Amino acid sequence: MIGTTTWVIGDGYIPPASTGPHPAMTSHDSACMLNANAEPARIEITVYFADREPAGPYVITIPGRRVHHQRFNDLTDPEPIPAGTDYSVVVRADRPVVVQHTRLDSRQAANALMTTIAFPVPGGDDRQ
Amino acid sequence: MIGTTTWVIGDGYIPPASTGPHPAMTSHDSACMLNANAEPARIEITVYFADREPAGPYVITIPGRRVHHQRFNDLTDPEPIPAGTDYSVVVRADRPVVVQHTRLDSRQAANALMTTIAFPVPGGDDRQ
Amino acid sequence: MIGTTTWVIGDGYIPPASTGPHPAMTSHDSACMLNANAEPARIEITVYFADREPAGPYVITIPGRRVHHQRFNDLTDPEPIPAGTDYSVVVRADRPVVVQHTRLDSRQAANALMTTIAFPVPGGDDRQ
Amino acid sequence: MIGTTTWVIGDGYIPPASTGPHPAMTSHDSACMLNANAEPARIEITVYFADREPAGPYVITIPGRRVHHQRFNDLTDPEPIPAGTDYSVVVRADRPVVVQHTRLDSRQAANALMTTIAFPVPGGDDRQ
Repeated sequence: MIGTTTWVIGDGYIPPASTGPHPAMTSHDSACMLNANAEPARIEITVYFADREPAGPYVITIPGRRVHHQRFNDLTDPEPIPAGTDYSVVVRADRPVVVQHTRLDSRQAANALMTTIAFPVPGGDDRQ
Repeated sequence: MIGTTTWVIGDGYIPPASTGPHPAMTSHDSACMLNANAEPARIEITVYFADREPAGPYVITIPGRRVHHQRFNDLTDPEPIPAGTDYSVVVRADRPVVVQHTRLDSRQAANALMTTIAFPVPGGDDRQ
Repeated sequence: MIGTTTWVIGDGYIPPASTGPHPAMTSHDSACMLNANAEPARIEITVYFADREPAGPYVITIPGRRVHHQRFNDLTDPEPIPAGTDYSVVVRADRPVVVQHTRLDSRQAANALMTTIAFPVPGGDDRQ
Repeated sequence: MIGTTTWVIGDGYIPPASTGPHPAMTSHDSACMLNANAEPARIEITVYFADREPAGPYVITIPGRRVHHQRFNDLTDPEPIPAGTDYSVVVRADRPVVVQHTRLDSRQAANALMTTIAFPVPGGDDRQ
């Protein structure tokens, strides 16, 4: 059992401009997820904001023994996430997964990067 | 219960210069916090320094199911935090929250970014 | 006993271009590992992808009381890891180790850096 | 009790060149430490390398309720840490502290930053 079932990203933000070729150097904010189980994992993403009710859930299925790097820029159902807006993210899975948060910011001439393993909610693997 | 009630940021620093338009590209150091509870969370921030007694508490209320990205640059009550100075931060909340630390440094021509989930103090959720 | 025996990197990616002198400024993605034990540690690295079965194991031995910073770019046996491709990594060791994930991205004119302690799988030190 | 007594940094490296004014923009690799206790904390730093026995301990005392941001570049006793060399770090304290690892790399024209909370060794606070 590799991972846990609930993860949090505190600092969500899609930089509203980019420098360089699309899509590689397009500014983005993403959740990079590993499903090391043999079976598919169903992922539900909820996005919290500063001044409105949360959006979601955004539902993704990751096949067994596969990774999925999800740019928040690319989520559209049930609604797109606006650029230039502060948010936080809760990721819930029906099997243990691992989530890492990464942002590429190319607003200025050379890109900046940041990453962190997301916060694994304790007890989150007790749902198994 | 998503999160815990005591978090630590070890490397606090507000870069004392910036390149680019204000406020988006202004150098800043921030705590990005999620309150996923239904009720508001009361946050107390204490700032430790290398050569003087701690400052604070700085008190913030985050409504239920909302995020708050706090730039340390913007704290003024009870006193501003000086730029160009090393500090650490302890965040205490009356309900579980999640804290992520991010710095944007635009002192040189292209901005740099860094982030980490803050340190969740074990047992910090036992106060519930 | 410093560390644990199973670690995960969620966001693996080798930037497919570089600016600056090789090898210092070559874009790379790496696992920086400490074996603080007196005895050697045998490391097995498995690499997961979005659209194919995992690769590996890549086997490394770290002598006792030594570090090993492994660029994923440099792994060749059983197969190289392609640049410009999303992946995740599971590191398994026969003794406790510590793993930190770092990327240097020099695709644009000034390099970007990102790092995080990898995710330590709970219970991973129970195999001792 | 805020923190724990044993921490690990996996990816130590002092970039061997810098761009910009000294000391603010000098490339550095550092451990940013908070001692939130009322009493002083005695810190012992051991540095591990790829091809030689560890160096240290480097001994630092942090007064109560104070922070100390230690650049590894500045350690000299018992020996300096060479730039351009891979290392890992174990930090041991006689009271709970919090350690965050940060690097500023200004080898190229705009600086890069990376940070992570160091790895807190489980059970490390049992020595209290």
